[in-house]
Amino acid sequence: MAVYTNVSDAKLKAFLTDYDVGTPVSFKGIAEGSENSNFLLRTDKATFILTLYETRVHEEDLPFFLELMVHLQSRGINCPLPIAARDGALYRTLNGRPAALISFLDGVSIATPTIDHCRQLGGALAAFHVGGVGYGRTRQNGLGQKDWQPLFEKCKDRADEIQAGLAATLESELAKLDVMWPSHLPKGIVHADLFPDNVFFLNEQFSGIIDFYFACNDMLAYDLAVCLNAWCFEDDYSFNAEKARAMIAGYSQVRPFSELELDALPILCRGAALRFLLTRLFDWLYHPEGAKVEPKDPLEYLHRLTFHANAEDPKAYGLD
Amino acid sequence: MAVYTNVSDAKLKAFLTDYDVGTPVSFKGIAEGSENSNFLLRTDKATFILTLYETRVHEEDLPFFLELMVHLQSRGINCPLPIAARDGALYRTLNGRPAALISFLDGVSIATPTIDHCRQLGGALAAFHVGGVGYGRTRQNGLGQKDWQPLFEKCKDRADEIQAGLAATLESELAKLDVMWPSHLPKGIVHADLFPDNVFFLNEQFSGIIDFYFACNDMLAYDLAVCLNAWCFEDDYSFNAEKARAMIAGYSQVRPFSELELDALPILCRGAALRFLLTRLFDWLYHPEGAKVEPKDPLEYLHRLTFHANAEDPKAYGLD
Repeated sequence: MAVYTNVSDAKLKAFLTDYDVGTPVSFKGIAEGSENSNFLLRTDKATFILTLYETRVHEEDLPFFLELMVHLQSRGINCPLPIAARDGALYRTLNGRPAALISFLDGVSIATPTIDHCRQLGGALAAFHVGGVGYGRTRQNGLGQKDWQPLFEKCKDRADEIQAGLAATLESELAKLDVMWPSHLPKGIVHADLFPDNVFFLNEQFSGIIDFYFACNDMLAYDLAVCLNAWCFEDDYSFNAEKARAMIAGYSQVRPFSELELDALPILCRGAALRFLLTRLFDWLYHPEGAKVEPKDPLEYLHRLTFHANAEDPKAYGLD
Repeated sequence: MAVYTNVSDAKLKAFLTDYDVGTPVSFKGIAEGSENSNFLLRTDKATFILTLYETRVHEEDLPFFLELMVHLQSRGINCPLPIAARDGALYRTLNGRPAALISFLDGVSIATPTIDHCRQLGGALAAFHVGGVGYGRTRQNGLGQKDWQPLFEKCKDRADEIQAGLAATLESELAKLDVMWPSHLPKGIVHADLFPDNVFFLNEQFSGIIDFYFACNDMLAYDLAVCLNAWCFEDDYSFNAEKARAMIAGYSQVRPFSELELDALPILCRGAALRFLLTRLFDWLYHPEGAKVEPKDPLEYLHRLTFHANAEDPKAYGLD
C-alpha cells in the first residue's frame, strides 16, 4: 500500500483546471500500487485514478506506458485509459511529480485464483499480446535476463542473511540461465507483472488488466512464464498442473502457443522466478526503515525457482 | 494512511452474504483512518466504506459510535450511516475483527481552511451538538482531563527526547489544569476530534462530518476548543483571531454560546492543546517501528499550548 505524496484539495483543484473532468465530489488516497501514490477521485462526471509517479517509474518511460493503454483500448483490451489534459498531454506535473489522471476500471482482483480464473487469465494474456501488435513505441525490459547479474551483485554479500547458501544458489542459477536463456522466440509487448492483483474479474468473469508500469518488449512466452509463477503455485508452494494446463489452453485459444515456446517454458519459468526472487531480495535487504510498503518474502520465489530448476521439460508441468 | 488487515475477495464475498447491498464491482483499501482498516466498496447498488476496527477502537464502544451515526442522521446531521446486516446488527466480524459497512459520504476535506470554512464549521459543530440531544447511549471521554496525568506518566521519562524541558512544562500544565478545569458547563455528545480531515465540503459548502470514534459525553465548549486548536492556527503557529471569531459566530447562530462558556474558552483550549500534545507525544515515542501511520509532530501542540497558557481571557483570542 502506498500514498507517498499527499495532495491537498487546493493542489487538486489547480491540477484539474487543465482537464475537462468535472468538479471533485470525493478524493481519497488508495492503498494500491507499490511505488506510486494513487488517489481515487470522483467528480460530478465520472470516477478516476490520479497517479503520482514516484521514483521507480521514470518520466521518460511514461509516454510508452500511457500511450500503450490508449493503443490497447483501441484494440478492444479492457484497461484503464489515461485522460488527456485540454492540451492533449497524457500527464502533467503535481507536487513536483509526473501525474496522470486515468479512467477508473471496475473489477475485483482474486486472491486465490481457481482453475477457471487461470483459464480466463490465459485468454486475456493472449488477447493482450495480440492487441499489442502494431504499437509504435518500444521499451527494453529493465528487468530482463541481462539485468539480473547486476541486480545480484548489489545483493550478493547480504543474500545469505535471508537463507544460508542463497548467494551460491543464485550465482549458479544466473550462470546456467545465461547459457540457456532463449533468444529465438516470438517477441512483442509484454505486461511482465501480471500478478493476480493486476487482473480484475466481475461476477467471476475476467474484466480487465491494470498496472502497465513494467510493460516492455520481450518474449511473449516469458509473460506466460511470469503468470505460471504467479497464478499456478499453491500456498504450500506446490505446483498446480491443472491450473497451468487451463492457463495455457486459454492462451492457445486466442494466440497459438508454438512447440518452440512450450519447450522453452521450463527455462522461462526458471528465469521469471529468478527475476522476482532477485527484486524481492533487493527490496527486502534495502527497503528503507519505516517504508510504507511491506517487502514481500523473497523465499516464496526460491521455492518456485527450485521447482523449475528440477523440471526437465514441459512434462514436469503436466504439459506435453 | 493505513490498511492493517487485508480482506480477500473470498472473505468479502462471505461477509456480504449477511447484507443486502448488492454485488461488488470494485474494492480498494483506502489510506484513511489512523487506527482502522478502511476499504472503499462499490457494488452494483451503491458505494460503501468497509471498516475493520483494529486495536484502538474497543468493541464495547461500537454500539455507542454506530448508533450515534444513526441518531444523528435521524436529526438531519449529514454523516455516514452504518448499514444493518439482514439480522439488524450494525457490525459483524471479519478476519477476526469487528467490521462495519458504512454508507459512503461525498465530500472533500480542506487542508487549509479559510475564514468562511471556519464559520461553516462552527455552525456544523453547533448543529451536531443540538442533534446529539436525546441520544440514549453515553460514553465517558477516554481522553478527558482525568486521563491526561496517567498518559503523561507513560511519557514522562522520555518527553525531553523531543525537547529539553518538555516534561517539566507538561507537569506544570497538568497541575494547573487540574485546578482550573471547569465542571459547570453544559454537556452533551461531543465529536472530540473534529480536525479538518474529518469535515467534508462540496463546492466550498459544508457537506458532512465523519469519524466518530472519539465521540463521547463531555462539555460542548470543549469540542469548540478542539476545533479552535485544529482550525484557527496558521502554519507558523500564529493564532488567526478572524477564523476564531467566524467559527464562534457560526456556532452561535445555531446554538447560543453562553458567557460562561466563552469565559472558559482559554482554559478549555489549553486543555485541548495538552490532550493532543500528550497523545501525539505518546505515539511519537512509542509507535512501532515500520508503523504504517506517520506519527504527527507533538510540538505543533506545544506551540498552541504556550499560546493558550499566555492568554488571560477571551480578549487574547480577539473575542469579547
